[in-house]
Amino acid sequence: MQLRMDQAALSAFLVRDFGQLAADFAVERVGPEGLVLRLKVAERHLRPGGTVSGPSIFSLADVAMYLAILARIGPVALAVTTNCAVDFMRKPAAGRDLLGEARVLKLGRTLAVGDVMVFSEGAPEPVARASLTYSIPPA
Amino acid sequence: MQLRMDQAALSAFLVRDFGQLAADFAVERVGPEGLVLRLKVAERHLRPGGTVSGPSIFSLADVAMYLAILARIGPVALAVTTNCAVDFMRKPAAGRDLLGEARVLKLGRTLAVGDVMVFSEGAPEPVARASLTYSIPPA
Amino acid sequence: MQLRMDQAALSAFLVRDFGQLAADFAVERVGPEGLVLRLKVAERHLRPGGTVSGPSIFSLADVAMYLAILARIGPVALAVTTNCAVDFMRKPAAGRDLLGEARVLKLGRTLAVGDVMVFSEGAPEPVARASLTYSIPPA
Amino acid sequence: MQLRMDQAALSAFLVRDFGQLAADFAVERVGPEGLVLRLKVAERHLRPGGTVSGPSIFSLADVAMYLAILARIGPVALAVTTNCAVDFMRKPAAGRDLLGEARVLKLGRTLAVGDVMVFSEGAPEPVARASLTYSIPPA
Repeated sequence: MQLRMDQAALSAFLVRDFGQLAADFAVERVGPEGLVLRLKVAERHLRPGGTVSGPSIFSLADVAMYLAILARIGPVALAVTTNCAVDFMRKPAAGRDLLGEARVLKLGRTLAVGDVMVFSEGAPEPVARASLTYSIPPA
Repeated sequence: MQLRMDQAALSAFLVRDFGQLAADFAVERVGPEGLVLRLKVAERHLRPGGTVSGPSIFSLADVAMYLAILARIGPVALAVTTNCAVDFMRKPAAGRDLLGEARVLKLGRTLAVGDVMVFSEGAPEPVARASLTYSIPPA
Repeated sequence: MQLRMDQAALSAFLVRDFGQLAADFAVERVGPEGLVLRLKVAERHLRPGGTVSGPSIFSLADVAMYLAILARIGPVALAVTTNCAVDFMRKPAAGRDLLGEARVLKLGRTLAVGDVMVFSEGAPEPVARASLTYSIPPA
Repeated sequence: MQLRMDQAALSAFLVRDFGQLAADFAVERVGPEGLVLRLKVAERHLRPGGTVSGPSIFSLADVAMYLAILARIGPVALAVTTNCAVDFMRKPAAGRDLLGEARVLKLGRTLAVGDVMVFSEGAPEPVARASLTYSIPPA
C-alpha cells in the first residue's frame, strides 16, 4: 500500500487546516502500518489534579486517525467522524506527553474504520484505546 | 428516587471542582429523569469552518453524565469515566449553544451507566448521542 | 414522517427473509417514534444458569433496529450493520420474554443510526442498551 | 506475566461450563500476548445468503475475551460482560472458519478490558473488531 502524504506533508496540512489546534500535536511517524501522533501536554490539557482530560485524549485519538486516513487517501477528501468509542484504562503519567498509535483497519468507499492506542511516553501499558469510524464523502 | 444535589448545589460543585472548565457550562435542569447541561458555545469550541469540535461535544456529554450521577450519589464519591462512545449524527447549527440531556440508566455499586442526547438549542434533531460508563470507587 | 411498512408487512418480511430466525421474534408495535420487538425466550437463548445469552440480546437489538429502519425506507434496500455497541446492565428476569424498543435517531443517505433499550417484560429497569449504525447501499 | 490456565485447561473449562456452546469453539493458542479462538462455522451460524451472522461474530469475540481473562486470573472468578462494541468491516469469506485474536489490555481489580480482531481463516484483512469490558466480582 502506497502512502499519498508523508510526515512533512501531514505536518503542513495540520498547521494549515487545524489552526491553533496544530500547536498541540506533532506527527512522530507515518508508515504503511499506521501513524504515531504526539500530544504535547500543556496546562490547558489538564483536569484539576493534574491528569490529562478526557476530551484531550479524545482529541488525540481523533486527530491521529484523521491524519492516518489522509496519509492513505491524500488531502483532497474531507472525512467526518461518525463514531468514536474510547476505553479509558489508566491514569496518564504526570508530566509526560501522550502518544497515539493509529492504524487503519478498513478504508472503504464511504467508510473508514480504525483504532488508536494511547500511551504515556515511555510507559508500556496503554492509557486508553479508541475505535473510530469516519464517513468519506463521494469524490 | 431522591436527589442528593439540586441545580444550585451542582452549579457550585462545577465552579469549585472544574476550575476554568466551569465557565463553559450551565446546569439547566435536574430531576429524577435526568439532567440538562448547556455548553455555552464560544470561539474556543469551534473547528475551522465554525462547527463545534468533537472534543467539545465529548466534554459536554462527559460533564453532563458526571453531574447527573453526582445528583444521585452526592458530592462524596469521585467517579471516573471508563468508557465513552459517541455517535456524531448531524452538524451543530451555527451560533447556537448545545444542550446535553443526560439520563442515568444504571447506578450500581461499582459502575454507573447512562446516555446523553446532544441538541443544538431549538433544533429537534440530535447532533450526537453518547453512552458513558463510570467507575465508582468504594466508599 | 410516513411509515412505508406496518406491523403486518414487517412480520411478513421477517418470515420471508430471516428464515428460522423469524420464529424467535414478534413485532409488537411500530410507529413514527420507533418499533418494539419481542424475543420469545426459549431454551436455545439461555446460558448455563438460565440467563439470556449476550448474543441473543445482541440479536434482538440488531433485528429490532433493522426492522425499524425498514419501516421507514421500505423493503427495497439492504442495510448492513457496521457498528453495534451494547451496555449490559442487569440480569434478565428468569422465564420472561425480552422486549427491544428501537428508535431511529438518524436516517441519512448512506448511514442510519439508532438505539435500542432492552427490558424483561414487565420490568421497569433496562437489561441492556445498544447503539447501532447501518450502512445503506446506494439505491 | 504468568498464565494460570493453558490451552488444555481452557478447553476443559469450555466444555464443562458452556454446555452445548462449547462445540462451536476451539482454543487454538494461548500465551502472554493473548488467545486465539476458532469458531467452527456451521449452518446454524449463517444468515440467509450464507454469511456468518452478527450474533455469531459477537459470540466468538465474547468467548475469546472471556477465556483470555480466565487464562490470567484462573477459573475461580466469574467475569460478566458489561460492554461490547463491534465494528463489522468486511463480509466473512464463505465456507471458512473464523478466528478471534483476543488481547487483554487491562486487568484491574474490578474491571478487565480487551479487544478482539476477527479474521476469516487465511484472509489478511479483518472481518470485525470488538472491544469488551468485563466486571470482575470481588473474590
